[in-house]
Amino acid sequence: MSKLFAIGPVEMHEETLEIGGKQVPYFRNEEFSQLVFSASAGLNRLLFNEKGELILLTCSGTGAMEATIMNCFTKEDNLIVIDGGSFGDRFAQICDTHEIPFKVVKVKQGETLTRDMIDELIADEKFTGLLVNLNETSIGQLYDIKMLSKLCKEKDLIFVVDAISAFLADEVNMSKYGIDAVVLSSQKALALAPGLSILALSEKMLNRVSKIDPKSIYFDFKDYLKNAERGQTPFTPAVRIIIELEDMVKRLEEKGIENIIKETNEIALYFRRRIKEIGLDYPSYPLSNAVTPVIFKDENAEEVYRELIDKYGFTVNPSGGENAKKMFRVAHVGKHSIEDTEELVLAIEEIINNKK
Amino acid sequence: MSKLFAIGPVEMHEETLEIGGKQVPYFRNEEFSQLVFSASAGLNRLLFNEKGELILLTCSGTGAMEATIMNCFTKEDNLIVIDGGSFGDRFAQICDTHEIPFKVVKVKQGETLTRDMIDELIADEKFTGLLVNLNETSIGQLYDIKMLSKLCKEKDLIFVVDAISAFLADEVNMSKYGIDAVVLSSQKALALAPGLSILALSEKMLNRVSKIDPKSIYFDFKDYLKNAERGQTPFTPAVRIIIELEDMVKRLEEKGIENIIKETNEIALYFRRRIKEIGLDYPSYPLSNAVTPVIFKDENAEEVYRELIDKYGFTVNPSGGENAKKMFRVAHVGKHSIEDTEELVLAIEEIINNKK
Repeated sequence: MSKLFAIGPVEMHEETLEIGGKQVPYFRNEEFSQLVFSASAGLNRLLFNEKGELILLTCSGTGAMEATIMNCFTKEDNLIVIDGGSFGDRFAQICDTHEIPFKVVKVKQGETLTRDMIDELIADEKFTGLLVNLNETSIGQLYDIKMLSKLCKEKDLIFVVDAISAFLADEVNMSKYGIDAVVLSSQKALALAPGLSILALSEKMLNRVSKIDPKSIYFDFKDYLKNAERGQTPFTPAVRIIIELEDMVKRLEEKGIENIIKETNEIALYFRRRIKEIGLDYPSYPLSNAVTPVIFKDENAEEVYRELIDKYGFTVNPSGGENAKKMFRVAHVGKHSIEDTEELVLAIEEIINNKK
Repeated sequence: MSKLFAIGPVEMHEETLEIGGKQVPYFRNEEFSQLVFSASAGLNRLLFNEKGELILLTCSGTGAMEATIMNCFTKEDNLIVIDGGSFGDRFAQICDTHEIPFKVVKVKQGETLTRDMIDELIADEKFTGLLVNLNETSIGQLYDIKMLSKLCKEKDLIFVVDAISAFLADEVNMSKYGIDAVVLSSQKALALAPGLSILALSEKMLNRVSKIDPKSIYFDFKDYLKNAERGQTPFTPAVRIIIELEDMVKRLEEKGIENIIKETNEIALYFRRRIKEIGLDYPSYPLSNAVTPVIFKDENAEEVYRELIDKYGFTVNPSGGENAKKMFRVAHVGKHSIEDTEELVLAIEEIINNKK
C-alpha cells in the first residue's frame, strides 16, 4: 500500500483514474469543445477571474511560466521578481533569456518577504510588473498576497502569480487581489496527471497580450485565445488531462473553494502540530497550506525519506543540495485526510525512534 | 461500440489503457530513470539511431517541430522546406518566426514531389538543411525518403524528418538514410495519449546542438540532453505517457519493426482495394501506410463522416476548408485489423448506397 505525500504528482482520486483508463476520444468536434468550455468556465469561477479568459497549454509549469513572460512583457518593461528559491530563480532566468529588464528581491533561506524589502529595491527605479511564485514550492513560503496586491495597485504594476502549488490550498482570488495572470499546472492540487498547464488572464492582461508578438508559434497566446472562442486549441492538446480537468472542476465547484482551502488548511495545521510533538520542526516564515518543510536537527532527513518509502510505501519530497539532510517536504494537497496524515506522522516517529 | 479511425488520438491498446488508469508515481528517483533509459534505448533501436540521443518533450508535435528548428539551426543556415500541406506550411511558418532563412518547394494538391522540383530551387543557391514531413498528414502523401536522403548526402544538407505520422507505418531508418533529427508524437502509431513528443538526434546533430543557444528555457535541448544522462528531464514531464511509452516500446520491439510496418501496409492495401470496389477513390500520389485519403466524387464526404459517427460509432478524420466535401482520411495505425477495416468499409458502403 503506497501513498504519495510529494507535491506533484500527488495522490489522485478514483474518478480521475477511471477517466485515465479510458480510450482518448477524437477532439476536433463539438463534444470536446463543450468540455473545454465547461472546464474553462469552472476554473475561471474558482479563480474569480470575472472578465478574463483561460488558456490550456500542453507543457509543464515552467513552459507556462516562460510562455507568460513571452506573451505579456516586452523589452520596454521592467519587472520585480520575488526570488526565494528555485522557482523564483527560474522566473529571473526566463526574464534574462528573453531580455526582459528585471530586478530581483532576494528572500534568503529562513527569511520572510516584507514590503520594506521591495520598497528598498523600487525606491529609485520605475517598474511595470511583478512576478511571484505565491507559494515558493522549494521552501514552502507563502508570500503575503495582500501586501503584494496593495503594492501592485499603488505602483500600477502588472501582477503575475505562479499559483502552481498554491491554487486550492491558499487563497488565489484574481478579482479581489487584482491579479493579471495566474499560472497553474495539472499535477498539483488539481490532482491530475502531469502534462497540462493553465493560464488565467485578466481583462487588462488580454488587452496587453493582443499587442505583443512573441517569437513563437507554439507559445503564441493570441492563437490560443482565438481557438478558445470555439472551445479548441491550436495544436493537439493533452486531451485526456483536459477530460480529467473538466470532471475535477465540476467536483471542486460542488464542494466550494472556501471548503477546499479550509480542509487543506486543517490537514496542514494538524500535521504541523503533530510534527512538533514528535520532536521535529518546520520553518517560522508563513507557510502555504499545500506543503510543510520538515526540519531534521539530527540531519537524518535523507535516511528517513528512504525508510518511509522502503518500509511504509510513503513518498515525500526529498530536498536537493545542501538541504538534503536537513529537510524534506510533505504535501497536503491531493487525495489526503487527517487519518492518512496521522499514519505518516506515526511512520516518521517510528523511524526516528528506532534511530535513537 | 465506437472505434477511432482518425489519425491521432488513435485506437489504443488494452495494456496502455491499464497504465492510464493507475496512480502516477513520483518520478525524481532511480526507478523512473531506469524506465526512461529503457524507453529511450528501445526507441533509438526502432529508429536505427545508432550513436545518437533521445529527448522527451512535454508538448504537442508542433512544439517539438519548433524546438527542433530553434535548437538545430541559426540565422547562418539556409533551409529547404518541402511544403505539400498544412504541416509543410507549419515548418515554413516556424522558420519565418525564428528568422531562419529558407525556401519552400511547394507540392500542389495531387502532385508528386520529385527531385527535379527540388533541383530547380537549389540550382543557384547554397543550402544547409532540409525539412520534411515524411508523411504530409493533411493529404497522406509519403515523400520519397530514398530520393531525399540521396540529395541530402550529395549536397551535405542537415536532414530533419517529421515522422510524427510515418513512424511505425513507413520506413524511418536514421542510419540508412542519414537522418539527423526525427520528430515523433505519442498519439499517432505509438497509440498513446497525446501530450508527449520525442526528438531523436543523430551524433552529427548532437554536435550542432551543443553550439546553439536557443532563446528558450523550456525548449533548450542541451538541458534535456544533460538531464537524459541520468534518465531525467529538466522539468516535470508527462510521466504517465512515458510509462505507457516504455511498455509500448517493449512490445513493439518484441514484434519487430519490419513486421509492424508490414502489418500496417497490409491493412492499408486492403482498405484501398476495397474502397475502389465500392466506387470510391484515393489519390494517385505515393501514400503513407498510416492513412488513406478517401475521395468522394459525389461530394458527400462530410455527410458520410457524420453518419459514420452517428450510426456506427466510427470516427474518421474530416477534411477542412475546400476539401471538406471531397475527402476524409482513414487511419490504419493504432489497434486495427483487416476485420475492423472491413467493418468500416461495409459501413461506408451502406451509407453511400442509401444515398443513391
